[in-house]
Amino acid sequence: VTETLLERPAAPLLPSDLDTPAALIDLEVVRANITAMQRLASAAGVRLRPHVKTHKSVEIGRLQLAAGASGITAGTVGEAEVFAKAGFDDIFIAYPVWAGGPRGRRVRALHEAIRLRVGLDGARAADALATAVAGTRRPLEVLIEVDCGAGRSGVRPADAGDLARYAATLGLLPIGAFTYPGHGDASRDAREPASRDEVHALEMALASLRAAGLTPTVASAGSTPTAAFSGRPPVTELRPGEYVFNDVGKLRIGACGPGDLGLFVASTVVSDAVPDQVIVDAGTKTLGREGSETLGYGLVPAVRGGFLRRLNEYHGYLSVDRAEPRPKVGDVVAIAPNHVCPVVNLFDELIVHEGRQLLDRWPVDARGHLG
Amino acid sequence: VTETLLERPAAPLLPSDLDTPAALIDLEVVRANITAMQRLASAAGVRLRPHVKTHKSVEIGRLQLAAGASGITAGTVGEAEVFAKAGFDDIFIAYPVWAGGPRGRRVRALHEAIRLRVGLDGARAADALATAVAGTRRPLEVLIEVDCGAGRSGVRPADAGDLARYAATLGLLPIGAFTYPGHGDASRDAREPASRDEVHALEMALASLRAAGLTPTVASAGSTPTAAFSGRPPVTELRPGEYVFNDVGKLRIGACGPGDLGLFVASTVVSDAVPDQVIVDAGTKTLGREGSETLGYGLVPAVRGGFLRRLNEYHGYLSVDRAEPRPKVGDVVAIAPNHVCPVVNLFDELIVHEGRQLLDRWPVDARGHLG
Repeated sequence: VTETLLERPAAPLLPSDLDTPAALIDLEVVRANITAMQRLASAAGVRLRPHVKTHKSVEIGRLQLAAGASGITAGTVGEAEVFAKAGFDDIFIAYPVWAGGPRGRRVRALHEAIRLRVGLDGARAADALATAVAGTRRPLEVLIEVDCGAGRSGVRPADAGDLARYAATLGLLPIGAFTYPGHGDASRDAREPASRDEVHALEMALASLRAAGLTPTVASAGSTPTAAFSGRPPVTELRPGEYVFNDVGKLRIGACGPGDLGLFVASTVVSDAVPDQVIVDAGTKTLGREGSETLGYGLVPAVRGGFLRRLNEYHGYLSVDRAEPRPKVGDVVAIAPNHVCPVVNLFDELIVHEGRQLLDRWPVDARGHLG
Repeated sequence: VTETLLERPAAPLLPSDLDTPAALIDLEVVRANITAMQRLASAAGVRLRPHVKTHKSVEIGRLQLAAGASGITAGTVGEAEVFAKAGFDDIFIAYPVWAGGPRGRRVRALHEAIRLRVGLDGARAADALATAVAGTRRPLEVLIEVDCGAGRSGVRPADAGDLARYAATLGLLPIGAFTYPGHGDASRDAREPASRDEVHALEMALASLRAAGLTPTVASAGSTPTAAFSGRPPVTELRPGEYVFNDVGKLRIGACGPGDLGLFVASTVVSDAVPDQVIVDAGTKTLGREGSETLGYGLVPAVRGGFLRRLNEYHGYLSVDRAEPRPKVGDVVAIAPNHVCPVVNLFDELIVHEGRQLLDRWPVDARGHLG
């Protein structure tokens, strides 16, 4: 254990008689997180377009729209399809969408059904998109993806104009640029510099688009770690996702507080046969393999001094040699995951509660819609 | 890249016009894997009770039974429920089942419906099991879990008798012992010693059960890495799971050959905007985070010299600075996962093919049945 959190979350109250493992969301916390992020965006004068990859839940998407979100962001065509079918009519797929083969037909159908925007970062992808939507009534809106330091996808900001002009010649409609500051997730001190990087990259991208003779209206920025800093010109919209639940990763880098954790995995202690450890029924098929043997695989606030040091598929190894109290076989403990997004994707439903009161069960509607 | 495989797999032939990411299983390879493991068990004079956690597929379970398996092994009560509903009537849940709360009612219903065996490694769990099945017509069969070196769950082999005797006083029926040699997965050289550990632990456990006045009839051993060595007295059954598909992890430790990989993830190259790398549409929500930046996150046989160095949720970073040929945006590549079990659990269906011919789609029936 090389790291201690400045502020540890308290153990959440849970309903009784739970079947475990289960993903529990505290509705009061989730609502507060949604309200706070919307206020932040509104105060900065930018739109909020939450990324639904985190929750994949139509119900939660509706809460975000009701709070004032201007639309939603999806990570895959499949996620967009699920939300479009549920009535969401303004969706940005913030991904370099490849529209060849079956996916081309799906993109075309979505474009005909709702206001769709997609990400674009190369000429071949532009060709495929143009072919996919050829002959539809409106041009497809695209946002040029630019790289601001994450080194993942996206052209150099200065090259945005060339790609946009090429896309326009194909009949696509470039309306602006987007970027993802993935490097802002690295540490507490990485957030503000990454935000500066994304704002600067979007400035350059817009300049490049204008120099190419275009009139960009959208400059779209990430992310939960940078959202507090990036609501300033030329940014017009923010696309955070994780803020709705938060997780230990966000807590570690100061992107949320200990009271802002909206999702815990309820897990049962099933074995104490090996000394100084208990086994809980949450392993990699429940928590993903997000973490390390140094960082651990999640926090168990109810077991002070406990350390979730290892995972197998159905087994979590919780070291309890320094734990107080020592959990007993049959006890249900709540685990705060390190990274919440892959965890939600492993469950069919979210159990909605407020403290000990069970309120509802919401399906993870877009679970498994991976492409 | 610190490790080279002795034998690299060839790129599989794939059907065209695939929607990606997709989990493809080559039926010819899968059938051959099933046949080979059954032959190995039969030649050793032991029963084969395949672990369904790997495939979670009723269709594949049926292929295993048809080839001669004596029953199946499940990792969770939920998996057992799915297979019982599909007609499987002899299921061992190789897990320290906690039968309190809702799970107690589910264990009771399963016990009444099929021939169920469950794992047991502690007195409190025995109490809960006995309460759960109180008043049913037959006693519930239990296998005492013993630890053979994995340090996960299971009592010390010499303590098996005491726990079994206690379980018997509660009305449970201890029929033998089981163990899991998880430490046999560590390296090529770990397999045979781990097999010796498991055989020895089961010998001691059976002696302990006999000393307690019981007559054990089952000594159940793991696993794909140790299966080639553990089919010898007192072992009566083997419970391998991964052999049905195998993966890069099994290939690295010599537990399969390069032609035995039965599952690949088909993924599309979606971006080449950042130099010396392409992005594929398979990230942690498709492959899990099984691997490391040193080992990589899976093999891409079609891209010689390519290295899948990093994953985000929907993005795989494939380094291609030394790759031949360099994949183009829109190309579909097959990824052999490092660890196949968590990958299957992320998909709704398996696409069944033989080379370029698409045969069928099989649901991952027990996906998400995590507890």
